[in-house]
Amino acid sequence: MKVVTAEVITIGDEILFGQITDTNTQWMGVELSLIGVKTIRKSSVGDVREEILRVLKEAQERADIVLITGGLGPTKDDITKHTLCEYFGTSLAIHPDALEAVDTFFRKRGRELSDINRQQAALPLNATYIPNTRGTAPGMWFDHEGTVFVSLPGVPFEMKGLMTDEILPRLKQRFTLPVIHHRVIRTVGIGESFLAEKIAAWEDALPPHIRLAYLPSMGMVKLRLTATGTSLAALKEETEQLVQDILPVIQPFVFGYDGEEFEEVIAALLKASGQTISAAESCTGGYVAHLLTKIPGSSAYFQGGVISYANEIKEQTLGVRPETLAKYGAVSEETIREMAEGIRTRFHTWFGLATSGIAGPDGGTPEKPVGTVWIAVSTPERTLTRKLTLGGDRQQNIHLSAIYLLNLLRKVLLQEE
Amino acid sequence: MKVVTAEVITIGDEILFGQITDTNTQWMGVELSLIGVKTIRKSSVGDVREEILRVLKEAQERADIVLITGGLGPTKDDITKHTLCEYFGTSLAIHPDALEAVDTFFRKRGRELSDINRQQAALPLNATYIPNTRGTAPGMWFDHEGTVFVSLPGVPFEMKGLMTDEILPRLKQRFTLPVIHHRVIRTVGIGESFLAEKIAAWEDALPPHIRLAYLPSMGMVKLRLTATGTSLAALKEETEQLVQDILPVIQPFVFGYDGEEFEEVIAALLKASGQTISAAESCTGGYVAHLLTKIPGSSAYFQGGVISYANEIKEQTLGVRPETLAKYGAVSEETIREMAEGIRTRFHTWFGLATSGIAGPDGGTPEKPVGTVWIAVSTPERTLTRKLTLGGDRQQNIHLSAIYLLNLLRKVLLQEE
Repeated sequence: MKVVTAEVITIGDEILFGQITDTNTQWMGVELSLIGVKTIRKSSVGDVREEILRVLKEAQERADIVLITGGLGPTKDDITKHTLCEYFGTSLAIHPDALEAVDTFFRKRGRELSDINRQQAALPLNATYIPNTRGTAPGMWFDHEGTVFVSLPGVPFEMKGLMTDEILPRLKQRFTLPVIHHRVIRTVGIGESFLAEKIAAWEDALPPHIRLAYLPSMGMVKLRLTATGTSLAALKEETEQLVQDILPVIQPFVFGYDGEEFEEVIAALLKASGQTISAAESCTGGYVAHLLTKIPGSSAYFQGGVISYANEIKEQTLGVRPETLAKYGAVSEETIREMAEGIRTRFHTWFGLATSGIAGPDGGTPEKPVGTVWIAVSTPERTLTRKLTLGGDRQQNIHLSAIYLLNLLRKVLLQEE
Repeated sequence: MKVVTAEVITIGDEILFGQITDTNTQWMGVELSLIGVKTIRKSSVGDVREEILRVLKEAQERADIVLITGGLGPTKDDITKHTLCEYFGTSLAIHPDALEAVDTFFRKRGRELSDINRQQAALPLNATYIPNTRGTAPGMWFDHEGTVFVSLPGVPFEMKGLMTDEILPRLKQRFTLPVIHHRVIRTVGIGESFLAEKIAAWEDALPPHIRLAYLPSMGMVKLRLTATGTSLAALKEETEQLVQDILPVIQPFVFGYDGEEFEEVIAALLKASGQTISAAESCTGGYVAHLLTKIPGSSAYFQGGVISYANEIKEQTLGVRPETLAKYGAVSEETIREMAEGIRTRFHTWFGLATSGIAGPDGGTPEKPVGTVWIAVSTPERTLTRKLTLGGDRQQNIHLSAIYLLNLLRKVLLQEE
């Protein structure tokens, strides 16, 4: 089977000059490899007609698929569409469906359609219009001399939405791609190198057509198995057996599989439990509540929270005793216990969560250095506390405290703790 | 003066397939633009001889400077070095200084020099050896047919060290470079197209050596002026005049300049005010508090907050009257006013913030569709309320509600509202 190749092009001076971070092409590289398309080149060019023409020509010579992002905003420094017209030997015309979509987009927000925004509905005549439900710049699909060109807006969530909903399914239809099966095991609370040591023997014994990748992020590591072959059923069976083989070794760290996001796993467990929850946060400053409430439908179980930076709020709103704070300090097992129990009883919830620690960069002492954090989960029956010793910067300490607290909650929900 | 151009090439399958994030090229783009070198292309290719040869040839045709990172590790089979030899028509030989450096590197760490590491001292015969004090792969400088090629290791801190200590100073010596000055105006609360309409006349009248770029992100747009010339003082004066010219038109939306982040601007204003603050959040679910508390030192003014998803928490903890909730509902001007005043008086702070709205995807009604949000800022003298009509998904609605609330606070702090 011929390997189907892709080239990813980003257009914009701001990427070349380093003024914005390009996160799009990494995401696209992953998604393309997941459907069996091999990315052979990534290129960034400025908002310059000659450069865009040149990179399009080079890409067409090399790749079956050319994905282009950026350079589609409504302002004057955007020249992608005009240059695409020149490249394909065509011209722009208002596309009626695109016009209706951009008109609806503005009307929904109670705003008039300006001439500039109207121009966003102008597409090259040879383009297939790809509706963008998340913004005003549509996607465009071109089938040109055997190569597929796709032009997408550079705003990441618009680009990702268009890729997922429209472009990836169309590419799978348009090309004959190898059968690839991915299986992801998602872990939390164990570092990449410790995980690698635990599974070394299993990893060494993997067959050549199944590859393993470690994908670490803060506090978590994804293990991705990529199996290539001809029968999806056979690949699925094979990877599933491999997962079952390794699960006994890593089970305490596994919270989910494939696309299951950590917060969504917690949300599903909470929903299934039928219980309510509240959170008392000091060092995480609202981030635990944010992780819980960013999930749609969270009001079914999340009742509310208190962010108690000031000690008097810990006393008045959470009922932490002044003697406890005076004797043990805000960052202590005694205080975190009273915080978790206080929010649970005062907000009348089944679970009460709490965090108190030193996120940094200031506030550390020799006994309680930056990164010292107490977390707690309280239920009507008991209160579990844990001390964390984190070594990151402020943002990392906030993030890891929240993740480890939610992981403790997960284990309580699963009766593993 | 001729523009000196650069092309940046990264070598490595792991970048193409999205398995690691490339942060090197963004950093290099910034550093090059700061010395007046214009990056005209960035390319990523895999660890494939033919692809590396092709991208080198293309780059030489286009650019004065070709910067190459990656493909130099001891496990990569030195594909980059062998391919550079082939490209330049030369061969590898152990460089005595490089060998001594790598030997010293290992001896200092109490480790034997292996054959693999010894090979790291083998350089193409036409290379100028650039010592790497932070790792074992040396930098290499080639002056080939009028183009400068530089090969650097891909480990970010090694690459950055070599660039700063050796490569950037050498480039400034080797080329006659123009002076470049960047000035960024940061706006919030106005869309890219509306901003473009407001400043159209000013933008059209910009002189040819000063370019404007729009850099949008959620709820914000950065306007970047890039001026090129021979005198930094003259460029600074010229761009400053342009900023002063347009400021009267866009002043209500401008929150900062250059590297000033929104949350840091709010934090600095709060710190300067000497006042304290608290937040009562419904639809934002802790995100406002998170934005405030992620800034180091925020405990100086942030006292705490309440997340009141449940109406009984709005009543008990914030003092919202049951009659208000019954008559107007949780998402109303009357309720948001009582929330902001309630948190301010109960937490004894100068400012009280509040949000209440329908973040979605559920919970909308014909009168109050998803995206209907009330925000408020309360002070001892008055309480300002605003109704937002947002049209995004849950995450966007949460993010924009928080940004617009903090922007209202900013205006109150500046006595603009």
